[in-house]
Amino acid sequence: MPLSANNPNRSSWLHVSKTSDFPIQNIPFGVFLTREDIITIGTRIGDTAIDLGALHQLGYFDGIPLTDDIFLQDSLNDFIADGRKTWRAVRNRVAEIFDSNNPTLRDNKKHKEIVLFRLDEIEMKLPVLVGDYTDFYSSLEHATNVGKMFRDPENALLPNWLHIPVGYHGRSSSIIPSGIPIHRPQGQILPAGSDTPVLAPSQLVDFELEMAFITTDANDLGEPIPIEEAEEYIFGLVLFNDWSARDIQKWEYVPLGPFLGKNFASSVSPWIVTLDALEPFRVKGPKPVKPLLPYLQYSGNKSFDINLEVAIKPKGAKETVVSRSNFKYMYWNMVQQLAHHTVNGCPVNSGDMMGSGTISGPTPDTYGSMLELTWRGEKPIKMKDGSERKFINDFDTVIMRGYCENDDVRIGFGSVVNQLLPVFNPKKK
Amino acid sequence: MPLSANNPNRSSWLHVSKTSDFPIQNIPFGVFLTREDIITIGTRIGDTAIDLGALHQLGYFDGIPLTDDIFLQDSLNDFIADGRKTWRAVRNRVAEIFDSNNPTLRDNKKHKEIVLFRLDEIEMKLPVLVGDYTDFYSSLEHATNVGKMFRDPENALLPNWLHIPVGYHGRSSSIIPSGIPIHRPQGQILPAGSDTPVLAPSQLVDFELEMAFITTDANDLGEPIPIEEAEEYIFGLVLFNDWSARDIQKWEYVPLGPFLGKNFASSVSPWIVTLDALEPFRVKGPKPVKPLLPYLQYSGNKSFDINLEVAIKPKGAKETVVSRSNFKYMYWNMVQQLAHHTVNGCPVNSGDMMGSGTISGPTPDTYGSMLELTWRGEKPIKMKDGSERKFINDFDTVIMRGYCENDDVRIGFGSVVNQLLPVFNPKKK
Repeated sequence: MPLSANNPNRSSWLHVSKTSDFPIQNIPFGVFLTREDIITIGTRIGDTAIDLGALHQLGYFDGIPLTDDIFLQDSLNDFIADGRKTWRAVRNRVAEIFDSNNPTLRDNKKHKEIVLFRLDEIEMKLPVLVGDYTDFYSSLEHATNVGKMFRDPENALLPNWLHIPVGYHGRSSSIIPSGIPIHRPQGQILPAGSDTPVLAPSQLVDFELEMAFITTDANDLGEPIPIEEAEEYIFGLVLFNDWSARDIQKWEYVPLGPFLGKNFASSVSPWIVTLDALEPFRVKGPKPVKPLLPYLQYSGNKSFDINLEVAIKPKGAKETVVSRSNFKYMYWNMVQQLAHHTVNGCPVNSGDMMGSGTISGPTPDTYGSMLELTWRGEKPIKMKDGSERKFINDFDTVIMRGYCENDDVRIGFGSVVNQLLPVFNPKKK
Repeated sequence: MPLSANNPNRSSWLHVSKTSDFPIQNIPFGVFLTREDIITIGTRIGDTAIDLGALHQLGYFDGIPLTDDIFLQDSLNDFIADGRKTWRAVRNRVAEIFDSNNPTLRDNKKHKEIVLFRLDEIEMKLPVLVGDYTDFYSSLEHATNVGKMFRDPENALLPNWLHIPVGYHGRSSSIIPSGIPIHRPQGQILPAGSDTPVLAPSQLVDFELEMAFITTDANDLGEPIPIEEAEEYIFGLVLFNDWSARDIQKWEYVPLGPFLGKNFASSVSPWIVTLDALEPFRVKGPKPVKPLLPYLQYSGNKSFDINLEVAIKPKGAKETVVSRSNFKYMYWNMVQQLAHHTVNGCPVNSGDMMGSGTISGPTPDTYGSMLELTWRGEKPIKMKDGSERKFINDFDTVIMRGYCENDDVRIGFGSVVNQLLPVFNPKKK
């Protein structure tokens, strides 16, 4: 099926500003509460949210094989399970419906009143029910920085890193959408120079700049996914903030990996941008430093040129951008991650989420965490309001943004924005 | 609400053999396909499965606040979310319905034909939709054995182990019920003496003898569960085989923990035995070796005396019991695990599963994995059929069983039984 939705020459009868992340060539998918408090699946063009459930009921998707309630769901899981052919048919149809030259909906005031929403009328929800969440560790620069700080500067990379897209399981229950505030976690921390831990609020709360991809049903138990088929099972991507508490993590993570230092929260941007919409932004990936086993060898361009930035906004003050990075810096790409994840027969299902791992680029201003940006706090960041940051302060809001751009079109992800609140106080509940 | 279902003097009008794991004092919960291929929630007395969905439709639960379809589900998640009061009311009612002295169902042939099933008429399914699966590492003996083998025999325990119930996230998608065969996983393995990994079938496939508890909705994001409340959120337990590929695990697990060495399969016994049914088998736990932080200190008996055994059955041969252990050996108990898991505000939901970690006792015949039982293969186990085992062979079936027993009653878990097949071959699909 052709990707007619990607036609760069199409414009929409809905208003789209030049700097919008959501032109008619994007057509992302999300879940929201309407002004009538009904949960539905929708898309967005410019600053207008579109109720796909209502559009479907009005017959705008006639001819596409869809169940009646496919968009009247509180998650995209069932729609994603329908597969790539269906995603493409729906995106192409949405592009046609909102094309400047198509009068059908444009000139139907009654239908428009039912289907269209201002952004301030809706509440964005988590787009998928995350069955399993895996986090990778796929930035060479990030792994090297962490290795230098915590292990051996001369042998920063562990022996397996250049052979394996290293990953580990994360917690699905604490994945939240943009907008939900987070409490600073408490946990066991080992004070410097002591051999006895204390229970205390984390002093080193950090963000990790990541992207995450969302899969469809891919394989049965026992059955690997060959790397050349892997892309068929990737629905789309979101911005992903893998909140981390460095002091809790440091004390707990040997030998079984990060746990409470991570699972207090991970936040995502609410609109899933499809892999199809990112098609124009494919770029060549880095050359492997060591030869790859055949199951990790791929052909074609599997990296994506996505500009990323992180800002911190203190309470009542202006934000300061603290990092500018790019998804293309990743050493291991999504098809390698998915092929590796399933090489042992591990089943991957619709709605599963796979984080890239912290995205750090080659220069210090492209690092994807405060840990690296301030080098463990040794080089605090100067903020626009005159304050300094080593890590994240109470009441700071962390903002991540991402977009692709070429001469024709800009395809963006919007943002993931979450405020850090002080430690939970049961008396105030 | 009193635990009248636990009355040891009650007998059932259904036949129950003396050695049955499922007397009328047990009343576990599971999910099965009926002879009409309808999915339902049920319980079991002796060798008779009982369709709770049908019983409810026939009015046998009148007076207990239950939604009409609470048992007509493909998972126990919604029922578990109803909370302890409801679980108790249903167990007490089931005990009354099947009491020898109660003629209502006993003498209603038509109702019995609808409600009762022979075990060979039904197919047991996974009892819950596992939202998140966490595996702990809570046996002092297991952690010590692994530390001796792979790290430093003189300092086998890592510094955090006596302070933290160490845990990590596992994969929900590969949790399967008893009866489903498993393929030997392939994966990256580092050959001895080489620095370049190969892709190969694991040569060191192992079981891990564990129990897992299943939770109800417990807390909101950010809100810790105090240890004295933790038991309120534990629905019940199953036997848990945490299948492991030691060679894959060894190469991948530093620094982020086990991943593909674990997530090819974990299997569970299909009947969840409630914490209520285990009430008579509470025992005192081990004395802490080091002082515990207050959030991990508990009062009362929080350990359970559950006899466990593991057998290996080669194809066409008799089984050999390779381990006899007990759940009471665990150093960290379930309320400590749950209090720790949520101390940072990590949300726990209905249907979440928490594995104990390998249960190894003080003597070599009580170890809970082939890794320990054969000490990395150095001391192979002699099987009844004359063969030897270092790890699990293709076509071997691994069987785990568990039960509690006192002078009055035996409460058991049945078994978790899975065969290991050779590596998946796409040509044979």
